[in-house]
Amino acid sequence: MRTEIIAVGSELLLGQIVNSNAQFLSQQLAELGLNVYYHTVVGDNPARLEQAIEIAQKRSNVIIFTGGLGPTKDDLTKETVSKAVGKTLNFDQHALQSIEQYFTQTKRVMSENNKKQALVIDGSYILRNDYGMAPGMAFQVNEITYMLLPGPPSELRPMFNKYGIEYFHEKLGLQDRLTSRVLRFFGIGESQLETDIQDLIDQQTNPTIAPLAADGEVTLRLTAKHKDEKVANKLLDEIENKINERVGVFFYGYEQTTIVNELKNILMEKKKTIAAAESLTGGMFSEHITALEGAGIIFNGSIVGYTNDVKHRILQVDQHILETYGAVSEQCANEMAKQIRKLTGSDIGISFTGVAGPTTQENKPVGTVFIGISLSDDYTKVYNLNLAGSRNGIRLKTVKYGCHYLVKLLNEIE
Amino acid sequence: MRTEIIAVGSELLLGQIVNSNAQFLSQQLAELGLNVYYHTVVGDNPARLEQAIEIAQKRSNVIIFTGGLGPTKDDLTKETVSKAVGKTLNFDQHALQSIEQYFTQTKRVMSENNKKQALVIDGSYILRNDYGMAPGMAFQVNEITYMLLPGPPSELRPMFNKYGIEYFHEKLGLQDRLTSRVLRFFGIGESQLETDIQDLIDQQTNPTIAPLAADGEVTLRLTAKHKDEKVANKLLDEIENKINERVGVFFYGYEQTTIVNELKNILMEKKKTIAAAESLTGGMFSEHITALEGAGIIFNGSIVGYTNDVKHRILQVDQHILETYGAVSEQCANEMAKQIRKLTGSDIGISFTGVAGPTTQENKPVGTVFIGISLSDDYTKVYNLNLAGSRNGIRLKTVKYGCHYLVKLLNEIE
Repeated sequence: MRTEIIAVGSELLLGQIVNSNAQFLSQQLAELGLNVYYHTVVGDNPARLEQAIEIAQKRSNVIIFTGGLGPTKDDLTKETVSKAVGKTLNFDQHALQSIEQYFTQTKRVMSENNKKQALVIDGSYILRNDYGMAPGMAFQVNEITYMLLPGPPSELRPMFNKYGIEYFHEKLGLQDRLTSRVLRFFGIGESQLETDIQDLIDQQTNPTIAPLAADGEVTLRLTAKHKDEKVANKLLDEIENKINERVGVFFYGYEQTTIVNELKNILMEKKKTIAAAESLTGGMFSEHITALEGAGIIFNGSIVGYTNDVKHRILQVDQHILETYGAVSEQCANEMAKQIRKLTGSDIGISFTGVAGPTTQENKPVGTVFIGISLSDDYTKVYNLNLAGSRNGIRLKTVKYGCHYLVKLLNEIE
Repeated sequence: MRTEIIAVGSELLLGQIVNSNAQFLSQQLAELGLNVYYHTVVGDNPARLEQAIEIAQKRSNVIIFTGGLGPTKDDLTKETVSKAVGKTLNFDQHALQSIEQYFTQTKRVMSENNKKQALVIDGSYILRNDYGMAPGMAFQVNEITYMLLPGPPSELRPMFNKYGIEYFHEKLGLQDRLTSRVLRFFGIGESQLETDIQDLIDQQTNPTIAPLAADGEVTLRLTAKHKDEKVANKLLDEIENKINERVGVFFYGYEQTTIVNELKNILMEKKKTIAAAESLTGGMFSEHITALEGAGIIFNGSIVGYTNDVKHRILQVDQHILETYGAVSEQCANEMAKQIRKLTGSDIGISFTGVAGPTTQENKPVGTVFIGISLSDDYTKVYNLNLAGSRNGIRLKTVKYGCHYLVKLLNEIE
């Protein structure tokens, strides 16, 4: 299968946005075993889009379009593709209803051009849009498979995952598959991890091992080519075991999980509640944990004490501690963790204080961080870190280290 | 000038990296007044690259290649392009010296394949690589201008800015330039905004007006083609005024700013401090505001009252309100905003409560949101919204609406 992704949108050609849809789809299509040979980007221009379609029809047999399904005059993908394959456009009643429903629900007036979003190419299989108005669609003409997806990634990604993949499996009868497994590590640098498993990387052909570093984490992507899922999983298990014999102490989870998500899972499993006292992280820990569905079961709340006054007045940190040791201190982190646990009646209190930058604070250098974890009146532990990076890089790493330490602690105690 | 950017690299087609070079170059080329009509991505495959070059030669007269200039066998851009234009490859002595120097300096042994990086297409203008080994190059054949740039953004960007732009100016005798201005709007949908200014969009040729929607915001990119910066700014001012006569009430800022940033600016300007009481947003407002440098001047802190217990115990929301009206209510939002202002001794208290989903809460549907703003003991206002979208989409829109309402309020009062 020779696959091509055609992104339609002048905003891409002006450099206003990056073609992240092509990246996302390429990853997904690789998993499906479809070879992506070309990405093309054209503007909102029917003549040039038409030409791009002609070229794609000659060299590709799966053509995926992204963008240009919206309500405005610029949005012309459906019109141009339908013309190129000699099909008409019809209203999809389900899409029309959900568009009207959206406006009723949000109590907004629907402008007429919104209806255009419910037009679909005749005979298409409709890909529902669960996060927006314009549905996607797919069909086959002359042994070429076409799929049209909306431009906004927040709509395209769930649509492709939920409906698009299934369509390809069914229509293309895919057999040779790639199965990937992503292992996630925290607390070890990329070059160290790579050094530790270099011989495994060099020896392996199936599965392959690809390291990637981002945001202070390292992931290993293991990819097995196979015709049988069971065989693939066995191969992946074997290599995973070998890797974890070396660096398993830093392993924390699979695939798209995050260290925050792992923390949520273990808190749920152990039926523990948590609350946070945040200074340099400014609410980031709380925001990350409440971004997860069901957070309400384990997360009670937090106090963001950005000033010393709030740390004292609301979080009830002793004025003496703030004056003697400062807000960026082991003592303050200890007190913050204890207080938030007590004030909220939670099982666990976690605290974050430090210097995010760009300037020093209390004469402590940028990157100085203290994380407190309080599990009871008798047990509060403080971790000290010296982190490098930008202001928000330091904040993010701080949150991740907090989760990392707490997960380890919860795994150790019964 | 019809310009095409061809990125060469299988890592792009596998989705391992995103084509950020295309975005960067597109922005730069737009400023130069070169119209980018196509982005193409092909893998490290000479036959397919050759075909892509043939297509580009038919439709474009400026062709920019990125990637494939490195030392490995995969790197074949120079070889394939030189073949396509009927030219030979020669060693560039300067490049060869600096490659050897690099290895001497870093005390590493130079493997023979590194020399390959010093090969350049005969008759090229050499673009020095100040941050890596492979030089770029540019030349003209049959009225088509070719430029080859290295793949790593850390090498490509400075090379293009320092040497590439100059080459285009000289060789293409560029006079017309493009100047863009981005206007940002919040609180109005894309289709409504476009309907309101449709006649302006239709009439305009210079500057052009391009709308774009993302994350609940709409931007308009105004782009003027000109020979004189002053003339361009006058044209942009005129059309901006016309637009803002219609939809100015939703305008909040220029270029890359955010609504949170605008809130920070106005708080600083008016010397006001703020604190937040967050329920459904779970710390997102606090996190967004503390992500900005200098937030400590205007932001005191917040209480994330995720459970009713924390809302009552720490935020001191009356138990009666929680029992009678519920946490998702106008009354609760009102009380939360008031209390956080008083407890933290801030000038302004802002509160967020609602249902982020995925399930209803207190029998209130997903998307029900109340935002409270308290400016004094006598003035607290509550806004009610019905938002659509995913859990985190609703949370993000809630934060943005809170900033939007407060900015408006602060602009109204003196």
